Amino acid sequence: MVQLRFIQFGIILLNLTTSKIIVMKTKQIVLASRPKGLPTLKNFGSQEVDLPEINKGEVLLKGMFYSVDPYMRGRMNDAKSYVTPYQIDQPIMGAVVALVSESKSDMFKMGDVVVGLLPWREAFIASEKDLRKIDVSIIRPSYYLGILGMPGLTAYFGLMRIGKPKEGETVVVSGAAGAVGVVVGQIAKIYGCHVVGIAGTDEKVKTLKEEFNFDEVINYKTTKDINKAIAHACPKGVDVYFDNVGGEISDAVISNINFHARIVLCGQISMYNTTDVPMGPRIQPMLLTRSVLMQGFIVNDYQSLFIEGIHQLAEWVTEGKLKYTETVEHGFDNLPNALLGLFTGENTGKMVVEA
Amino acid sequence: MVQLRFIQFGIILLNLTTSKIIVMKTKQIVLASRPKGLPTLKNFGSQEVDLPEINKGEVLLKGMFYSVDPYMRGRMNDAKSYVTPYQIDQPIMGAVVALVSESKSDMFKMGDVVVGLLPWREAFIASEKDLRKIDVSIIRPSYYLGILGMPGLTAYFGLMRIGKPKEGETVVVSGAAGAVGVVVGQIAKIYGCHVVGIAGTDEKVKTLKEEFNFDEVINYKTTKDINKAIAHACPKGVDVYFDNVGGEISDAVISNINFHARIVLCGQISMYNTTDVPMGPRIQPMLLTRSVLMQGFIVNDYQSLFIEGIHQLAEWVTEGKLKYTETVEHGFDNLPNALLGLFTGENTGKMVVEA
Repeated sequence: MVQLRFIQFGIILLNLTTSKIIVMKTKQIVLASRPKGLPTLKNFGSQEVDLPEINKGEVLLKGMFYSVDPYMRGRMNDAKSYVTPYQIDQPIMGAVVALVSESKSDMFKMGDVVVGLLPWREAFIASEKDLRKIDVSIIRPSYYLGILGMPGLTAYFGLMRIGKPKEGETVVVSGAAGAVGVVVGQIAKIYGCHVVGIAGTDEKVKTLKEEFNFDEVINYKTTKDINKAIAHACPKGVDVYFDNVGGEISDAVISNINFHARIVLCGQISMYNTTDVPMGPRIQPMLLTRSVLMQGFIVNDYQSLFIEGIHQLAEWVTEGKLKYTETVEHGFDNLPNALLGLFTGENTGKMVVEA
Repeated sequence: MVQLRFIQFGIILLNLTTSKIIVMKTKQIVLASRPKGLPTLKNFGSQEVDLPEINKGEVLLKGMFYSVDPYMRGRMNDAKSYVTPYQIDQPIMGAVVALVSESKSDMFKMGDVVVGLLPWREAFIASEKDLRKIDVSIIRPSYYLGILGMPGLTAYFGLMRIGKPKEGETVVVSGAAGAVGVVVGQIAKIYGCHVVGIAGTDEKVKTLKEEFNFDEVINYKTTKDINKAIAHACPKGVDVYFDNVGGEISDAVISNINFHARIVLCGQISMYNTTDVPMGPRIQPMLLTRSVLMQGFIVNDYQSLFIEGIHQLAEWVTEGKLKYTETVEHGFDNLPNALLGLFTGENTGKMVVEA
């Protein structure tokens, strides 16, 4: 494709001969350097890059909503993990809801809304096989980054397949006000459990109790003896612990754990920014003497069951059994800021950025 | 029952009027005090006690073989665990193979050999419902304390139900020369795994390699870098870790753990004698990022499947696929010594005491 004459509007080129809009350049946010400890804005860079031509089986996408998630911190390290590390000078990748602006795919047409794991770019060419069309007629498109996306499915499969809550059991969720935590607590309530959340501000405690129906919520920052607070909130002990944070909060929950309890390892956000190997009390004697199961997982372990999960979650949402809160930041350039906000506890519910 | 005249032979009273042997007194070994750290002989006491009369549904037993097991150390503490603590001045309890000397039960006759969880007494009255008759025509009676008893079934169910080894996978066993460890390694070999043992003397290393067919065995006491030694012995990483010891050995194994690995928590013998809460590197980040399952268990979790386990183990033993070693100490009075020997690594295979 040859552009003889064009006018540039931001990232869009208008070919004056054909009157066809041709996206030529796009802004992208890259990993500028690997953080040591808490990441800062200096670890991110902004670049303009050329977009390649669209080939058969590909579409041109315009980003609508970008997901920022705690697991992204792990990918900023150069360490063996369940996802490959981000590369220096390469864009951050994450879940994105995008609009199909041009299509050379038989699967998608212009105007379709899709979701996929995509780079942090304002516009991108993507292969049809990396995208899934979503139905935005019944539910906000950004919900596919949260309650019907990675966090919702993580809560659903972690709790249902590992935690296996039974009516009358006690379920404790740490990071309870986070995108995964609020869903875990509400599903546990649907199953008739006594649900105890752990969160870090009085505002979150209030929201979880009043809006999300948690039975008890502990503010770990203002509680003097977290161990005692958990014992008090869980008079029958802890049967399921859905762990998003790790560290001393988990030590306290585990010291109240019941025989045959299940610990769902979903996140360890308290340790994502540590540089030394974190030390703590050894937990194996406790897990052994109480026949406890502990399992780490990522949502992709249950990929073959995603349709079931989305179906069930959407049903609960439309029935009003499952409430969902988003924190929406605005502006593509605000993506790094929004990600950093996760580690300072600024968000309630799922954090997304609207371009 | 009144004894007018009798002659005492050890623990047996002969009633000279009726010529009937009446067991009146028996020696028992009790917990004299709770150990702090490593137990010593001072924590045990020896007493003579009267035996009650035999009631309907009970039998008089004479102890033949007594099991000594690492888990007994835990019961010497006054702590919440999967088994109730031993009580001060009450006899130690454990698995015992015993001969029925007199029976008021329809289930057992004189001369039967039974196994049960019984007090450390030379003779005892027991209820028929606490005993199981064993077939000693095909296999030594003491085998029901080991390969066909608690340690064999522990190895079988822990490995098969939690570890789930697949052909070609790497299975690491700590405490490999112990009663459970040698069985775990051999079953893993039957399933076509690469089997790596960890043990504490060169003699044990030699035995495990030459007699029990382990592929690699590491002497953790003489290896300078246990982490590197495991990496070297497990070039494809660790898929199943059967943990009998805990502590730094486990830290090293876990740092070599594969995605979707299974950690079977069977024992933590390195920590049974510690009085402080042991500290170590936090393992949750590793379990999380590699989707690892860790499960504590006791053999009774699988009680409903015991017949299946005994059947399979007996088949492997008689086919010669499963070799079994016992260390037999002699003399009822040697029971405390034999138990203490477990913590100083004196035994290879299952330790039993023949009365």
